[in-house]
This record gives sequence, structure tokens and C-alpha cells, in this order.
Amino acid sequence: MAATPFRVTRRVEFHETDMAGIVHFSNFFLWMEYGEVEFLRSRGLTVAWREQGGERIGFPRVSAQCDYRRPVRFEDVLEITVTVARLGRRSITYAHEFRLGGELVASGSVTAACCRKLPDGGLEAIDIPDELRAKLQDPASGVA
Amino acid sequence: MAATPFRVTRRVEFHETDMAGIVHFSNFFLWMEYGEVEFLRSRGLTVAWREQGGERIGFPRVSAQCDYRRPVRFEDVLEITVTVARLGRRSITYAHEFRLGGELVASGSVTAACCRKLPDGGLEAIDIPDELRAKLQDPASGVA
Amino acid sequence: MAATPFRVTRRVEFHETDMAGIVHFSNFFLWMEYGEVEFLRSRGLTVAWREQGGERIGFPRVSAQCDYRRPVRFEDVLEITVTVARLGRRSITYAHEFRLGGELVASGSVTAACCRKLPDGGLEAIDIPDELRAKLQDPASGVA
Amino acid sequence: MAATPFRVTRRVEFHETDMAGIVHFSNFFLWMEYGEVEFLRSRGLTVAWREQGGERIGFPRVSAQCDYRRPVRFEDVLEITVTVARLGRRSITYAHEFRLGGELVASGSVTAACCRKLPDGGLEAIDIPDELRAKLQDPASGVA
Repeated sequence: MAATPFRVTRRVEFHETDMAGIVHFSNFFLWMEYGEVEFLRSRGLTVAWREQGGERIGFPRVSAQCDYRRPVRFEDVLEITVTVARLGRRSITYAHEFRLGGELVASGSVTAACCRKLPDGGLEAIDIPDELRAKLQDPASGVA
Repeated sequence: MAATPFRVTRRVEFHETDMAGIVHFSNFFLWMEYGEVEFLRSRGLTVAWREQGGERIGFPRVSAQCDYRRPVRFEDVLEITVTVARLGRRSITYAHEFRLGGELVASGSVTAACCRKLPDGGLEAIDIPDELRAKLQDPASGVA
Repeated sequence: MAATPFRVTRRVEFHETDMAGIVHFSNFFLWMEYGEVEFLRSRGLTVAWREQGGERIGFPRVSAQCDYRRPVRFEDVLEITVTVARLGRRSITYAHEFRLGGELVASGSVTAACCRKLPDGGLEAIDIPDELRAKLQDPASGVA
Repeated sequence: MAATPFRVTRRVEFHETDMAGIVHFSNFFLWMEYGEVEFLRSRGLTVAWREQGGERIGFPRVSAQCDYRRPVRFEDVLEITVTVARLGRRSITYAHEFRLGGELVASGSVTAACCRKLPDGGLEAIDIPDELRAKLQDPASGVA
């Protein structure tokens, strides 16, 4: 049974356009993050690094991808859906769809790995802590 | 025989970092465009829409993708290589690699479709004009 | 009698932060534009270039300024007020205030000049057309 | 006797344009920071927060301002000059000029205050440490 996707809307801003008169493709990655942040907020979580058991834990991106079907323009109101496509032991993949008036205009995904910050500033991949995992799982869908 | 990749360097700017202390992942897509623009400039071309035979022709993105291996930080000097991975009838795919001191830190690709602007502002995919195709082909490698 | 300022709210996004852990100062200028766009929308106008009597008319910025009182952080919810500080013959100045929980954290202003696009792509300053002027004036305050 | 301004050049990037076909005004603030960073690098300094005597010291912006004289476009090569306009006890003001082919197209300034980070994450204004002040002073001009 499919999970109910999380939904946000967003009106395209002027600075997000380029001289071709359409939205610059890079903005879809910012919007995916926006969708992810709002999804996490809805689960009582945050994308920011958090102290946990004396450690700073965060989710830097390991990959991001987007396919564009048709141009999006200033003041268009996008409907963005966010789904947890995969919840792995050490990483999470979000799938995003962008629609205008019901029509799919772009779709993408982002994978983020659970990491802790080392004293030297480096990052080390770790298992997603159980408390976070529980909140990321969609109780209605059994994702993961 | 492999094509010699086109190379540019770029120093990470302060506003490209985020509160995690590393470069925000979205900037790699801007840097891929930077590499593409400089590559096109080296071939006497431009990424901007151009008048050609009374038509406005451009290359909007149809897909973009990036894999991140390790964090990049403020003032790091990235070496970016740009290769024409595929020159199709109606689209071009660029492959990009990002290195710090020789180490691969990220790699990505962008595919752009040749389009003409319709009078109503819409876009229509067309074959890449011969003159552009000739300039995009790498004489040393026979790409395409 | 003072005009009632136009109000919008905005939650700080992750990519708007920098490695100092606070919002990068440049974002306040994007937020001023956001406030201006929403203000214009409330008056049935748009910041985009518009056809008017066969001409393309727009409002490029001639100056922008911001004072910062205290740092703003990820997920802070800013209350932004927009006021038409001055409606001149050929330009308009917006004043913006940014508040967190009632406390003023930044204030700025942007002046935009009414221009028409010349056939060669250049810009020429013109008087603000009466129809636009009427909509920009706040009936309650008699600004201008 | 006037100080010799520090000079950098910068080619306008595609994503810096907007649907009006010109550079979005917000980018001039990013370019001012770019000029400041390169100026500081030329003096052996960095804009990033630095450890000094066990404290983290940085220069958050307290004000920024820009006047725009004429539009700037994709692939224009800007010449940017950076001058220390004022070196106060606790703050520094940079003046920036932007030229295209010798013509002044924009000018602006940014003021940054010397601050230390408090244990609770807040910021406190402090005197610019002598070691930094010595490097910021232009020996040829006697600024400050």
C-alpha cells in the first residue's frame, strides 16, 4: 500500500527566473530541500545538525537528481509532493514530484546519509539512530 | 580514444556554504553550468538563447544529477572537468568531475535539449543545427 | 496618518544560512523583493515586465540598502512589513522591516525606477503610468 | 593621498540573470563579498570565523547598500574595486565600485562589525584585535 505523500506548495519567485524567462533549473534542488524540511517539521524533526548523546548528527546529501518535463515561470504555484522512497540503515532517499495545475512538470530525488561530526571536522557515516528512524517511518505505509 | 576534458578551476565562496559548515549541495549544479558555459565559450558558443535564421534557439535542461563523495569547504579550490558525454540528435549530455588536490569529491551530469521558442512562449524540441553540432564535437575525440 | 503596512511572513530556509551559522546577509534583499511582489499582487500588479500600449514597462532597481540589528537563524519565522515610503514621478521606494517575535532585527529599502525597454534592449526612464500609480497609492494613507 | 584600490574581475554567470534579461540586483552584494574576500586574502586574512586566543571572532554585516546606474548582462566582465573606506574601533566599511569597460555601472558599501561568539551562540561586539587591524590598514594610504 502506497504512502500518502507529504504536500507543500510554493509560488515561484522573481529571482528564481533567468534570462531565458523561465525558472533556473538549480532552484528545483532548493525546493526539494524545502519539501524535505517541511516534511521533517511535520514529523517533529529538523534538517539541521543536532546534538544527540553528546554527538552532532546530520544528514549531508550523497546524491541529488532531477528530470524536467516543461518550463516553470514566475508566479506559477507549484504543488510539491515528498515521499520517503527508501529508508536504509544509514541513509534516506526522498522522492519529489512537482506539479502545476495537476500536470507533472518535474520529478527528482535526494539521498542523504546519516553522519556524525568528528572532532577534526570530518564526517563519519553512522546508522540512523532508532529515535529518528521511528519518526521517519510512515506509520500508514510501513516504508522501510 | 578518450577526449581531453575541458578544465576550469573555482574557489568556493562564502555564501556557498551553509550552517553545516560545508558547501550547500545545490551549488554543484551552478558550478556544472559554469563549466559548461566556459566550455562553450572555448568553442565560440554561448549558453544564452541565440537568434538563428529568425528563430530563438536555446538549450533548456532536461535532467541534472550529482553524486557527492566528501564535503567541500570555503576557499577550497575545485578543479572541474567538463566532457561531452553524449551528443544526440536533439540533446547534449555533459559529464562533470570535481576534484580537490587530485581527489574526486563529486561527479555529475546535465542533459540539455535543443529547443526553439514558439510565438506563444512555449518551447519545441528541434534537431541541433549543423553549425552548432560541428562546434560541439571534439575534433580530437570524434564524440558523437 | 500613517499607512497600514503590508505584512508577509517567511520561514528561514536551510540554504539561506552560511557557515557562520546565521542567515547570509544577501537574503534580506531577496526577502524585500518577496515582500514587494506580494504587496504588488495584493494590488493586482506584478513585478515582471508588462506590455502596456505596445511597450514593455518594468521597474529595475536603482538602489537597495539594509541595516542588520541581530542575526537571524534557520527556521526563524520573520514578519516582514512593506510600506510605500515614497511614490515619485518616475520611481518608487519601498521600506521594509523584519521582525522576530515583535523585535526589529533588520530594516531596509529598495528604490525602483519606471523604465521602458528600447528596441536595442536598453532601458529608458519614464513617468509611472497613471493606471499603475493609482494602484500603488494607498487609498487609506494618501502616500505620494 | 588616496589608497590604491584593490581590484578583481568577474564574468557574469547565467544563473545571475533574471527574466528581465539583466543581472538580478541581489548579486551585487555577493560580488561585494567576493571582492572583500579576495582583498582579505591579499592581506593574509579570511572572512571566515577564526579562533583567536580561545575565542571565535568574525565580522557579521551590520549594513549593506548599493546604487545601480545601468543594467549588467550575462557574460559581461565586471571590474570591481574594493577600498577600506573606514576602519573604526569595532567595525570596518568597504566601498566597492563596479565598472564595465571603464564605465561605472554600480557602487556600494558594506559595514561589518567585529564580534565574538558567546557560549550561548549569541554575538558580542568587540574591538578589532591589533593583529587584524595592522593587516587591514593600507600602509600606502594610512587609512584609519
